[in-house]
Amino acid sequence: MAQEQPIQDLWNERTDLALERAVMAQQRMGTVPGLLTTEDSIDGIKVTRVKVTTPQASGAVGKPPGNYVTVECPDLRFRSRVTLKKVADVVASELAAMAGLPRQGDVLVVGLGNWQATPDALGPRVVSQLMVTRHIREFIPQELGGRLYPVAAISPGVLGITGIETIDIVMGVVRQIRPELVITVDALAARSVSRLITTIQLADTGIQPGSGVGNRRPGINQETLGVPVVAIGVPTVVSGASIAVEVLNAYFQKYNPNATATVDSVTDFLTSELHDLMVTPKDIDVEIMEMSKLLAGVLNHATQPAVSEEEILDYLQ
Amino acid sequence: MAQEQPIQDLWNERTDLALERAVMAQQRMGTVPGLLTTEDSIDGIKVTRVKVTTPQASGAVGKPPGNYVTVECPDLRFRSRVTLKKVADVVASELAAMAGLPRQGDVLVVGLGNWQATPDALGPRVVSQLMVTRHIREFIPQELGGRLYPVAAISPGVLGITGIETIDIVMGVVRQIRPELVITVDALAARSVSRLITTIQLADTGIQPGSGVGNRRPGINQETLGVPVVAIGVPTVVSGASIAVEVLNAYFQKYNPNATATVDSVTDFLTSELHDLMVTPKDIDVEIMEMSKLLAGVLNHATQPAVSEEEILDYLQ
Amino acid sequence: MAQEQPIQDLWNERTDLALERAVMAQQRMGTVPGLLTTEDSIDGIKVTRVKVTTPQASGAVGKPPGNYVTVECPDLRFRSRVTLKKVADVVASELAAMAGLPRQGDVLVVGLGNWQATPDALGPRVVSQLMVTRHIREFIPQELGGRLYPVAAISPGVLGITGIETIDIVMGVVRQIRPELVITVDALAARSVSRLITTIQLADTGIQPGSGVGNRRPGINQETLGVPVVAIGVPTVVSGASIAVEVLNAYFQKYNPNATATVDSVTDFLTSELHDLMVTPKDIDVEIMEMSKLLAGVLNHATQPAVSEEEILDYLQ
Amino acid sequence: MAQEQPIQDLWNERTDLALERAVMAQQRMGTVPGLLTTEDSIDGIKVTRVKVTTPQASGAVGKPPGNYVTVECPDLRFRSRVTLKKVADVVASELAAMAGLPRQGDVLVVGLGNWQATPDALGPRVVSQLMVTRHIREFIPQELGGRLYPVAAISPGVLGITGIETIDIVMGVVRQIRPELVITVDALAARSVSRLITTIQLADTGIQPGSGVGNRRPGINQETLGVPVVAIGVPTVVSGASIAVEVLNAYFQKYNPNATATVDSVTDFLTSELHDLMVTPKDIDVEIMEMSKLLAGVLNHATQPAVSEEEILDYLQ
Repeated sequence: MAQEQPIQDLWNERTDLALERAVMAQQRMGTVPGLLTTEDSIDGIKVTRVKVTTPQASGAVGKPPGNYVTVECPDLRFRSRVTLKKVADVVASELAAMAGLPRQGDVLVVGLGNWQATPDALGPRVVSQLMVTRHIREFIPQELGGRLYPVAAISPGVLGITGIETIDIVMGVVRQIRPELVITVDALAARSVSRLITTIQLADTGIQPGSGVGNRRPGINQETLGVPVVAIGVPTVVSGASIAVEVLNAYFQKYNPNATATVDSVTDFLTSELHDLMVTPKDIDVEIMEMSKLLAGVLNHATQPAVSEEEILDYLQ
Repeated sequence: MAQEQPIQDLWNERTDLALERAVMAQQRMGTVPGLLTTEDSIDGIKVTRVKVTTPQASGAVGKPPGNYVTVECPDLRFRSRVTLKKVADVVASELAAMAGLPRQGDVLVVGLGNWQATPDALGPRVVSQLMVTRHIREFIPQELGGRLYPVAAISPGVLGITGIETIDIVMGVVRQIRPELVITVDALAARSVSRLITTIQLADTGIQPGSGVGNRRPGINQETLGVPVVAIGVPTVVSGASIAVEVLNAYFQKYNPNATATVDSVTDFLTSELHDLMVTPKDIDVEIMEMSKLLAGVLNHATQPAVSEEEILDYLQ
Repeated sequence: MAQEQPIQDLWNERTDLALERAVMAQQRMGTVPGLLTTEDSIDGIKVTRVKVTTPQASGAVGKPPGNYVTVECPDLRFRSRVTLKKVADVVASELAAMAGLPRQGDVLVVGLGNWQATPDALGPRVVSQLMVTRHIREFIPQELGGRLYPVAAISPGVLGITGIETIDIVMGVVRQIRPELVITVDALAARSVSRLITTIQLADTGIQPGSGVGNRRPGINQETLGVPVVAIGVPTVVSGASIAVEVLNAYFQKYNPNATATVDSVTDFLTSELHDLMVTPKDIDVEIMEMSKLLAGVLNHATQPAVSEEEILDYLQ
Repeated sequence: MAQEQPIQDLWNERTDLALERAVMAQQRMGTVPGLLTTEDSIDGIKVTRVKVTTPQASGAVGKPPGNYVTVECPDLRFRSRVTLKKVADVVASELAAMAGLPRQGDVLVVGLGNWQATPDALGPRVVSQLMVTRHIREFIPQELGGRLYPVAAISPGVLGITGIETIDIVMGVVRQIRPELVITVDALAARSVSRLITTIQLADTGIQPGSGVGNRRPGINQETLGVPVVAIGVPTVVSGASIAVEVLNAYFQKYNPNATATVDSVTDFLTSELHDLMVTPKDIDVEIMEMSKLLAGVLNHATQPAVSEEEILDYLQ
């Protein structure tokens, strides 16, 4: 199995990570003009920046032109507070740089996904832990005055729950309150199980059709909303097909080094049941809880840099 | 204590029930021109219709002109399925009449209130059990085809959670999807503890500033949204002041028949702590669960009269 | 209304607070031999100690002989972190003194009450946030070694959920694991609304029949379990009858200083509906959340004095 | 890869299904004396009975001697009410036969597993929807009198939450209330993803060490408890290793018919991360909700055959 594959194969891969898609594109096509990947290590945390600058690169990667920053930390699973703090600081600083935070104007955080399905509930959970301030600027205690930036937040739900396309709810609210910036938070699909809950992606391109864990088709981006959209995403699911590719490639590496499996080659023999199954780790409840705490902290810190963690806790308790 | 009271006293009463306000207005002022109250008994269920037709009546009652239908059933507390079914049928039929259901155009159900506070969570709980159909008309099984009417639903949250006035979220969505009708569901304050979870109010005037259990100030009504708004509400809280009035009037009735307590007279001696405390029954969790099931059934039945309960259960499971 | 009242009246009062009962007993009977009440102020926090040493005192107060410590803090409602910390420290130190903590032997924490009813869910919520260590002593990281004391915890549910008397579940577990000490946590009824969520009672007498918010009749105490039982309780509900007494006494104080209302006198004129209704504050969800966090912190600190808050957080995340 | 495998290999398979283990044992060893498998089709539902009668068979299968009944229904995923009803009827009838239901004496239902981890929460969710009757026999309405059998239920939690071995809690309660029969409900691990939430296993051998999704080591069975124990289990997780075996066998079947993958052969090349990962379907929340409803219905029907579904709903509302 597994020779060269035409570019469109890539589109069958159920991953929302630009980094995984860029690696696949490069494996298949060699250098892709307009696709630039650089790696950094910040305080022991690996940060990869994928820049998509041309239509060809966009087609090869299957992602719109823009910037994708991936923060990886396999040790997140061990949940030491020191590691969590380091990762949070790196993500907050990358987010502030990408989103131009803090901002005097309103920032609207949108928690995408279905709060009734744990692996898809990351966005709503983050929103529920945010420090929301847009409505209290005139009433805030003097000691915080002048140091609070306006943040609003909604969890629009999913089409199956509301009967309304997510974009319509978000667009309705954006037109009504006219924020300067929208930040979305969403659960993603990854290609490799090693990325589950260990990778955080920031993108200045918003959310595209077909992305995300559930079905939230129309894009949520600057083009549709008229304001910049920064998307934060964390992989929480992988497909059976992706696992099959991972298993076969591990097998080939040991027993048949000339072969490579792809998502198309496994379609030939996998039952559709296994192929199409989307899975999530058994301990997804605690993983989502921890990651949503981390991201809420990141967002609070990036949007309110002049307010200490203690003060945020005071506010939130 | 307690003689004649100026009209504005009424406004201190923390009740959202037009019926309670109409009774108080009539007790104090005698006949109020433009205020009409009629009682019906349907299948053993008491239905009271309050019609407010003039500005004076509106001022006396503290409610905008329009129609208020109150369905009362003290036996709701016993939760016999027979009683629940009868009440549900009466409410569904009153709702259908007031809202002109079923409708070919989109109906948007809005679950008002704070899902994190049980006594204020009625609206969001109802929404979570609704049969939402707006998005599936083209995909529905043939046997339901032509019999399904389009329903969408949102729970916009409250200002303290989103940082956004509820009306702004609702208006944004309304402008985006342009429904023919909006139905709100909300928890209310009552004056008498006997009304807690035993009374259901329908109003074709929407929700007014200051109404509802939480703070959701701007009106959600035809004036602000541009489409008819029917409001369903159920009392879940009473104030300490209202209980004090109830206690004193019971005491006076036995020991001092010439006296009457009002919400203003109790202010003189009640601690502000007791006066301002809003309370709810100890078993509010199960009460909200039951009432939200009942109202979801009412809404499903009124909006989808051609679909049987069995089919709705099939759909909802 | 309301002159002298026979002792048994007291028993109609639906309060679980020894302090409220002692005050009532003294109001009615003057000095009660064997009933000793002393007040302390620790760091601005009022601590009252009620000592019941004789059968007469026990009969007058309606509580078994033993020690009852009440920590009061009206400012708890404002939820400043400084106040919470001070209250937590005082309660932890009183608890450690009463329960002889820390202990080398097993401590079993029992979260009484119904997790499906918010005002009765305090115990289970505290248990869900405890640092449970009994099972990990052999596996713990070296740096905690020797500093961890063994704590186990259960939430036995209520009779209506399990079909089993709570005491049978607790006794079964106690006989199986033979702890040195049992600490119960429970929601209580108070007489005055001002005590709701602002008062914490510690008792070395365990839990008695008829106490607590729900129906958990048989006693959970040293007599039944064979090990010392320290009970922690916080009022979350009051009865309509108690509120009526409070309202009338406030009224009498202003308008009729010679009269006093009691729970028996109000029975004459109150509807049974209002009389028997148990109510809880509208914001009970957040109150229970905050108080359960506080008590979990208290228990973690009192049982594990050699482990810092940081370490506990590390463990708990 | 993959020739004959020694028997002990089997033990590495992370499946709790006797049926999957019996098939594996027979594939490797041919006929196993004392291992009997028969298949039935009842109303279109496949029912497989595995009988383990000898120590050798027990060793080969890795399960204690006894009876294992597996009800399979791939269509469960489509959730038609007709299918659900048929499956429920078959399971109820198998359960009644195996457990000797209804019974005059107390039946204790034990919901095993961790209610904080969705894939492991099946048992506690079933328990929360059971009709519990042990405590109300003397108070029941006349019309149910004589037709109600006594059922009690607990969810003991898991070691990590309580610090107590599950068996100690169950044994403590059993010794206290002395039921005639214990029925456990638990989430299981399967070998094949096709079994997730589509297979229900009944066993008259109880729960063995190492079984179940979490770590609940000591056996819960007639030997430890002194009363018959019937275990109901449903697979909710599979291991990465099992998926890898499934993927490779599908691959071999098409491209290399002489090879077979086993859980040991994949250990050679799989990362431990993928090998050890336990996964669950993305939509596990709704799957658990549906399956727990089904099993609660099964238990209610099997334990209370003389009470109609309508009456049970009345009771449960």
